[in-house]
Amino acid sequence: MSGAIDPAVIVAALRAEDATVAVAESLTGGLVVARLVQVPGASAVVRGGVVAYATDLKHSVLGVDGGLLAAGGAVQAQVAEQMATGVRRVLGSTYGLGTTGVAGPTEQDGQPVGRAFVAVAAPRGVRVQQLDLPGGREAVREACTVAVLQLLAAQLADAGRRD
Amino acid sequence: MSGAIDPAVIVAALRAEDATVAVAESLTGGLVVARLVQVPGASAVVRGGVVAYATDLKHSVLGVDGGLLAAGGAVQAQVAEQMATGVRRVLGSTYGLGTTGVAGPTEQDGQPVGRAFVAVAAPRGVRVQQLDLPGGREAVREACTVAVLQLLAAQLADAGRRD
Repeated sequence: MSGAIDPAVIVAALRAEDATVAVAESLTGGLVVARLVQVPGASAVVRGGVVAYATDLKHSVLGVDGGLLAAGGAVQAQVAEQMATGVRRVLGSTYGLGTTGVAGPTEQDGQPVGRAFVAVAAPRGVRVQQLDLPGGREAVREACTVAVLQLLAAQLADAGRRD
Repeated sequence: MSGAIDPAVIVAALRAEDATVAVAESLTGGLVVARLVQVPGASAVVRGGVVAYATDLKHSVLGVDGGLLAAGGAVQAQVAEQMATGVRRVLGSTYGLGTTGVAGPTEQDGQPVGRAFVAVAAPRGVRVQQLDLPGGREAVREACTVAVLQLLAAQLADAGRRD
């Protein structure tokens, strides 16, 4: 179910760093935060999340730039970045995750089904990754969930190496 | 996976009523909103959600009374009610759902594992239900997810009969 990433490893790495995480989700619709809180003891590191499924909530709740959304729609790298930095600020966490993309069944904002962006905001900056995922709605959302958790795991591994 | 409730039926009922929904989750941690957005076409009726896993976010993001939380903790009927009404207001939806409770493995705020409260806020008022659920962490969260969706389904059926 959890694909190529074990959320328990992420929760343990966050605890080791005395860090917390919050998640801003669009196409994954709660799957990312649900995956994290399934780990016993997650409450020590998971602050929570915002599912900003409607585009206007990305602006009103998470502070994503309204002009950016109006000009290019919800499926852009910068939107994922601003969702990640926004949820980190609004929920007061060390790390913020962001997911936006097209789960299907139809294209959205001129972007094809399977196109997604995932981002991780950290104290030292934000990383974003573009994904072009095969499969149907469930497969796209699952792969996107795994991808953003892998991006966080990579970020935590780097933070560990710096210590 | 979806237990005794079909989220597609709820999405269809919301569409028929030209209504929207938003979800405020604690112990279910994103499962409820994830269940709703798995339905193709959910974007027409699902605004999004807030996972307020940390207790302070129930106040700062959803507007749950801070004195109530300080006096009685996060697992109370009134907290579920205020989460449901809060997310309805903050995310601008017709209906708001709220879940709070103890998934385990340990008791919380003096409440036993399996004790949960689910609420549905509608334009005409709010309904809340106490649950005492058997089983482990996964079973409690799944049963709580099903219960709040059943409460919404009952609310929508009532709304349909009034028309």
